[in-house]
Amino acid sequence: MSRNKLIVQKYGGSSIGNIGRIKKVAQRVYSYWKRGAKLVVVVSAMGDTTDKLIHLAEKINPCPSERELDMLLSTGEQISSALLAMALHKKGIPAVSFTGPQVGIITDKFHTQAKILKIEAERIKSALKEGKVVVVAGFQGQTTEREIATLGRGGSDLSAVALAGALKANLCEIYTDVEGIYTADPRIVKKAKKLSCISFDEMLELASRGAQVMQTRAVEVAKKYNIKLVVRSSFSNKEGTIIMRERPLIEEPVVRGITLTEKEAKITICKVPDKPGMAAKIFEELSSKNINIDMIVQNVSHQRITDISFTIEKSQAPKALEATKKVVKNIGAGSVLYDEDVAKVSIVGIGMKAHSGVAYKMFKALARAKINIEMISTSEISISCVVRKKQGKLAVKALHKAFNL
Amino acid sequence: MSRNKLIVQKYGGSSIGNIGRIKKVAQRVYSYWKRGAKLVVVVSAMGDTTDKLIHLAEKINPCPSERELDMLLSTGEQISSALLAMALHKKGIPAVSFTGPQVGIITDKFHTQAKILKIEAERIKSALKEGKVVVVAGFQGQTTEREIATLGRGGSDLSAVALAGALKANLCEIYTDVEGIYTADPRIVKKAKKLSCISFDEMLELASRGAQVMQTRAVEVAKKYNIKLVVRSSFSNKEGTIIMRERPLIEEPVVRGITLTEKEAKITICKVPDKPGMAAKIFEELSSKNINIDMIVQNVSHQRITDISFTIEKSQAPKALEATKKVVKNIGAGSVLYDEDVAKVSIVGIGMKAHSGVAYKMFKALARAKINIEMISTSEISISCVVRKKQGKLAVKALHKAFNL
Repeated sequence: MSRNKLIVQKYGGSSIGNIGRIKKVAQRVYSYWKRGAKLVVVVSAMGDTTDKLIHLAEKINPCPSERELDMLLSTGEQISSALLAMALHKKGIPAVSFTGPQVGIITDKFHTQAKILKIEAERIKSALKEGKVVVVAGFQGQTTEREIATLGRGGSDLSAVALAGALKANLCEIYTDVEGIYTADPRIVKKAKKLSCISFDEMLELASRGAQVMQTRAVEVAKKYNIKLVVRSSFSNKEGTIIMRERPLIEEPVVRGITLTEKEAKITICKVPDKPGMAAKIFEELSSKNINIDMIVQNVSHQRITDISFTIEKSQAPKALEATKKVVKNIGAGSVLYDEDVAKVSIVGIGMKAHSGVAYKMFKALARAKINIEMISTSEISISCVVRKKQGKLAVKALHKAFNL
Repeated sequence: MSRNKLIVQKYGGSSIGNIGRIKKVAQRVYSYWKRGAKLVVVVSAMGDTTDKLIHLAEKINPCPSERELDMLLSTGEQISSALLAMALHKKGIPAVSFTGPQVGIITDKFHTQAKILKIEAERIKSALKEGKVVVVAGFQGQTTEREIATLGRGGSDLSAVALAGALKANLCEIYTDVEGIYTADPRIVKKAKKLSCISFDEMLELASRGAQVMQTRAVEVAKKYNIKLVVRSSFSNKEGTIIMRERPLIEEPVVRGITLTEKEAKITICKVPDKPGMAAKIFEELSSKNINIDMIVQNVSHQRITDISFTIEKSQAPKALEATKKVVKNIGAGSVLYDEDVAKVSIVGIGMKAHSGVAYKMFKALARAKINIEMISTSEISISCVVRKKQGKLAVKALHKAFNL
């Protein structure tokens, strides 16, 4: 690492979970700083602070306003940023902490899952020019109406990557409690291996298919601005996983990783009239409520009616069901089924499409493990299957073995 | 209370110390709101949140930067404001919470004890116009450099009174855990009586002499803008103490209240050259460091040298000692003595000067209780004595009895 390089580092909640860990992070920042790097350090809330705050809110109001939730939750990151700045001062490092609004992270108005519109980075730039290490409270920004807005779970990743883009940083390091990106969750598959490098597209698929190491939107932004990204552990000095535009494909296995998520629920609309514009009407309504849809499956129609199923984050279920029922009434469809007892297992790898038989191999492995597939969805570099929730981990193990990862 | 009156209410830390109490505050706000009042509700941090945050900071850095302390501490009030807004929503009240910076409380740059320069209240006014109950995080504002700054201990009182002034409120209610202003601290003097009304000047003396019910600066601002102020309990419906410009003097006792503070320390500069400009030099240096001086006593000089003693808040002792030692060197004075084992006991009452013998009665009562007086300071409506710390409570009891309160 050379002098005057600008590095953005992000430390997750477990990396700064207590006083001792904050001091360790300060030590790591010190080791970069003394070698002359310019640093912007983005922090999450300490440990389970965010969950505790949500719990407090729900005890007061089971359906708290999203705007007020953002006011509440943004304090978690503000606390850790101030504490880290104090720890850096203790080590003799000139440091200054800022909230998201203070560093000009401007977002849209969708509270609890706002998107970043732009970053007005003058304040960070001038602090860096003064020789300061800049500590930024992650996960938050400010709407054009000067309201505090948060960026959704894992939003500190997005803060870090977006700042790296706006500041044209040389490197963005995501520090977490695992040593990088694995072929599968090591807690499920003991033989899972750490990948030394991975492409943005593969990381994107892994993240959106349930790998919890990085937020999907953060990977998207990193790809867009071609930011050199490293995922590594704050508890060791081991090299992590580099995420880059292209990775060498020769002799690499086709399937790079397997993911599992139990966070989604499945909604099925029965008896949708099979005529143009139906799907558009359904998803227009859901989109207007800012509900993120993951998989969408429409079966072939019989007698001019069809079923449409889709998956959503469970946390958005009440909103999604309300919107769905409204649109069902408008288009004259049948009943709405809701099922949250599902898991989604995915295989991810560039070049998958070019290798025949990957899908077959996946389905065969699941069948051998006596796992029923309820929905299938494919992308350029991934295949996802929805299965019963209780069979999710079994599915991951079976696939990890079948693809020799 | 009539329709369309604008009322500013402030709830202290113990009034919103837990979920149940926040709900009770919401109930009280509801009772005003349904009768048509327009409300601005200022909240402190929940219970001992501020102390906990300070403790956390000190574990990381024994001398945390004041700027970063403000970043840290301001989160406490932000949390309670968001939670109260949620509790109000639960009761069907349209409410919105704001931080100090969001409601345009502009302060000077003296972190941890900033002064309010002005209030740009447009945002509150437009929320009130929309029919909303406005909840404001107390204790905080924003400097002209867009830094978060806090207003010192008890700063939420100041937020409330300053907002009441800026909004031309009809009434400002300070809710606390006692039922009003007493003739002495009821925990020390069992026979202490609640006052039904008191003048701003008396309240000011009581507050600055150690009555912890209200912040001194808040009383000053209330007096300046002639704000109708009531101090009352959030745990009962009893009427509190009204603080007003003039109170009826006829037949009232001369001494209205007795206060005690153990928060101050005494600094003595020995052998100060007795020539013009010495005191100015000393207090110019202390003032430039934003250190608040309380009592100043200069003894008569002997052989062209004198001693100057003054009292300060203990929390400012390190800063004050550093500044004092610097100036002592410059002016060629002698040693600096520091004593924090002191207490200050004061009697307060308008018309005290007009009644002869009040000082004598005070000193005699203390002498009878075998309490030695170390410093004396008098104002238009108060007399204060510094005594040994361990004799402070005894002094209050002796004086309460001597003045038949």
